[in-house]
Amino acid sequence: MPIVVQKYGGSSVASTERIMNVARRIVATYDAGNSVCAVISARGDTTDELLAMAHEITPRPPVRELDMLLSAGERISCALLAMAIYTLGREAVSFTGSQAGIVTDTTHTKAQIVGISPQRVEEALAGGKITLVAGFQGVSTSKDVTTLGRGGSDTTAVALAHALGAGVCEIYSDVDGVYTANPAIVAGARKLHTVSYDEMLEMAASGAQVLALRSVEYARRYNVVIHSRSSFSDAEGTWVKEEDASMEQAVVSGVTYTTDEAKVTVRGVPDQPGVAADVFSALADAHVNVDMIIQNVGEQGYSDISCTVPIDDLPSAREALDRVVAELGAKGYTADDTMAKMSLIGAGMRTHPGVAALMFRTLADRGINLEMISTSPIKISCVISKDRVEEAVRALHDAFGLESTAVNHERADRGVWHD
Amino acid sequence: MPIVVQKYGGSSVASTERIMNVARRIVATYDAGNSVCAVISARGDTTDELLAMAHEITPRPPVRELDMLLSAGERISCALLAMAIYTLGREAVSFTGSQAGIVTDTTHTKAQIVGISPQRVEEALAGGKITLVAGFQGVSTSKDVTTLGRGGSDTTAVALAHALGAGVCEIYSDVDGVYTANPAIVAGARKLHTVSYDEMLEMAASGAQVLALRSVEYARRYNVVIHSRSSFSDAEGTWVKEEDASMEQAVVSGVTYTTDEAKVTVRGVPDQPGVAADVFSALADAHVNVDMIIQNVGEQGYSDISCTVPIDDLPSAREALDRVVAELGAKGYTADDTMAKMSLIGAGMRTHPGVAALMFRTLADRGINLEMISTSPIKISCVISKDRVEEAVRALHDAFGLESTAVNHERADRGVWHD
Repeated sequence: MPIVVQKYGGSSVASTERIMNVARRIVATYDAGNSVCAVISARGDTTDELLAMAHEITPRPPVRELDMLLSAGERISCALLAMAIYTLGREAVSFTGSQAGIVTDTTHTKAQIVGISPQRVEEALAGGKITLVAGFQGVSTSKDVTTLGRGGSDTTAVALAHALGAGVCEIYSDVDGVYTANPAIVAGARKLHTVSYDEMLEMAASGAQVLALRSVEYARRYNVVIHSRSSFSDAEGTWVKEEDASMEQAVVSGVTYTTDEAKVTVRGVPDQPGVAADVFSALADAHVNVDMIIQNVGEQGYSDISCTVPIDDLPSAREALDRVVAELGAKGYTADDTMAKMSLIGAGMRTHPGVAALMFRTLADRGINLEMISTSPIKISCVISKDRVEEAVRALHDAFGLESTAVNHERADRGVWHD
Repeated sequence: MPIVVQKYGGSSVASTERIMNVARRIVATYDAGNSVCAVISARGDTTDELLAMAHEITPRPPVRELDMLLSAGERISCALLAMAIYTLGREAVSFTGSQAGIVTDTTHTKAQIVGISPQRVEEALAGGKITLVAGFQGVSTSKDVTTLGRGGSDTTAVALAHALGAGVCEIYSDVDGVYTANPAIVAGARKLHTVSYDEMLEMAASGAQVLALRSVEYARRYNVVIHSRSSFSDAEGTWVKEEDASMEQAVVSGVTYTTDEAKVTVRGVPDQPGVAADVFSALADAHVNVDMIIQNVGEQGYSDISCTVPIDDLPSAREALDRVVAELGAKGYTADDTMAKMSLIGAGMRTHPGVAALMFRTLADRGINLEMISTSPIKISCVISKDRVEEAVRALHDAFGLESTAVNHERADRGVWHD
């Protein structure tokens, strides 16, 4: 029987009613003649509640114990879902990350998967049982409970899909796929039928929250096909897979944005070799995740270095910069958290010139100032004022014709590899 | 360093404040020069909440999944407590039942411990760490998560105390020891300094809720000294240990009662060999836990058989009795849940005649009718009307002088083995 791996997020199992809904969906997949392995996240706000309890005790909980605590959430949702499947007359068996053979390194709270030995899952599947696996967690090489960090359950699902040789990894959430833009902001946003791993990586890295970046990286590395879809409808969602040479490439697949980053500028840095290395080594040592980096040519032997960092990392960044500014004899630094980063993504950019020009012109026509620009072969990102970002996203969505039915059809034609 | 095993119940860790309180107590024991292994129950109502979620889904959850669900509660409290200990500047490491090497049979929801391999706990203790173990749970011989059922955490603690060679197993709860009677009912109830395993077993079996019956059985089998005490005070509690020939034996150590049992009577049973076996086999097959049994001599070749069963088992008992009454051609059966069982317990009864006579006289003087009587060498139990049980307990406590200071001193003298 073909093996299908499914992943259900926290909102999909937030109530008894929703758990029953997920159970029905899993049973339907099973009854259609598939072996089903479903990866389950913690219910709704469970993880936040557990974290809040920990923070009542200490602002900096020891990470090993934090993992012991947080891993309880998925066990609860998994066990409840198994019970729900029993009420539908099918046999289910739940496994912790450890029991499912998800082996990780010992980096608590953001462990990396180092191996998968899903023998118990395979035996249960071979025995005709529906298998449920607690997402987001594993067992370390030193036999402690670990969690995988942000996007962990998606990663569990993709890793199991690869290890079990599943045909597809279905990732269910409360959105029904990947859109050309956030539908809450852009009324005409259109659901994409397919996106390539590269496009999806750029989208996930630049604000699209539908799939976790790590899971897409894992999927690309092992060529696991992801189907991102809604747990509340039967509609087909978005397929994420390797770029196919025979596919027509959309010039632009989507517009994403994030307001979770701040812009930091180190001013008056002596223009000498190794200075940028000093700045970014200091930030890296402070575990600050730097995104865009720009160095402006300066006057009189000085230059400015700007970068974006997650707003959450800003306190650590400030500490690091206080030190490095003094050491380098720079003039100082500024941090601005009123910025937003907006990105235009599309595999077709590689072969279609003029995308950047149209993007900048569209924004200029509206008097929107560009604070920073960075590009990759399939992405152009701009930092602009947070106040204007929604307007800018709508303008670009419109300027690149992302809601036109023509593009719709063109993309639909790409679906030759599906069903 | 001497090893001390402590066990903290659910009410001791019900809030952040209480968790900090337990952490301080553990650290004080550690700082006094002991290796500490603490067994922790789920917080307050966690287990009930998890059960309620399961029952929202199905009235009869599959037991394997129920154990996966319920075992989450102790992991949460253990991890939070470890964090609390860190805030006090000491190192703690929490273990699941599985990690602590609690190996059980495969009887989910009421597994029996079949072996203990606490290597990880021992290594952590040897490394100078405070160790915390999730109570109530283990891992089965087929590698599934199991729970130990009622009194499971006490049993985990006693089993670990034995396996680790601890000098004492301190069982903390919201009561500060074992009393001559329930202090909520008898104003003059007195805390006992020591009770023997046999006395404690009879007390636990007949209504005293301070220690779980199973854990006392385990302690008696392996000669583990239990110290039952309060997590809210530093006062010495009650020591439970092997009867010491040199100890003065109190004639009566306590009066217990329970209102959780119903009296069942099968009427008009043909007076033939094997009939009682048929009745109690049927009840055993229905997993009904029968306590007192009385067979009255009947007239004309018929007799009545009465027994007490837990009120919770009454539905199963009725099903079994409906069948067996028909099969045996008995006249019928009655079930009465307005009864209470009251017991007088004391190791000295073995050598002091007249205890039963004084008990029956005391009750008769108050016009309290005895529905059933059963005895062991150190216990006399009577079933009486639930309405009169508190009055009866007070009367017996008084009649046997359980609150007199004379008895108090006599018992205090017994404490030669404790300092």
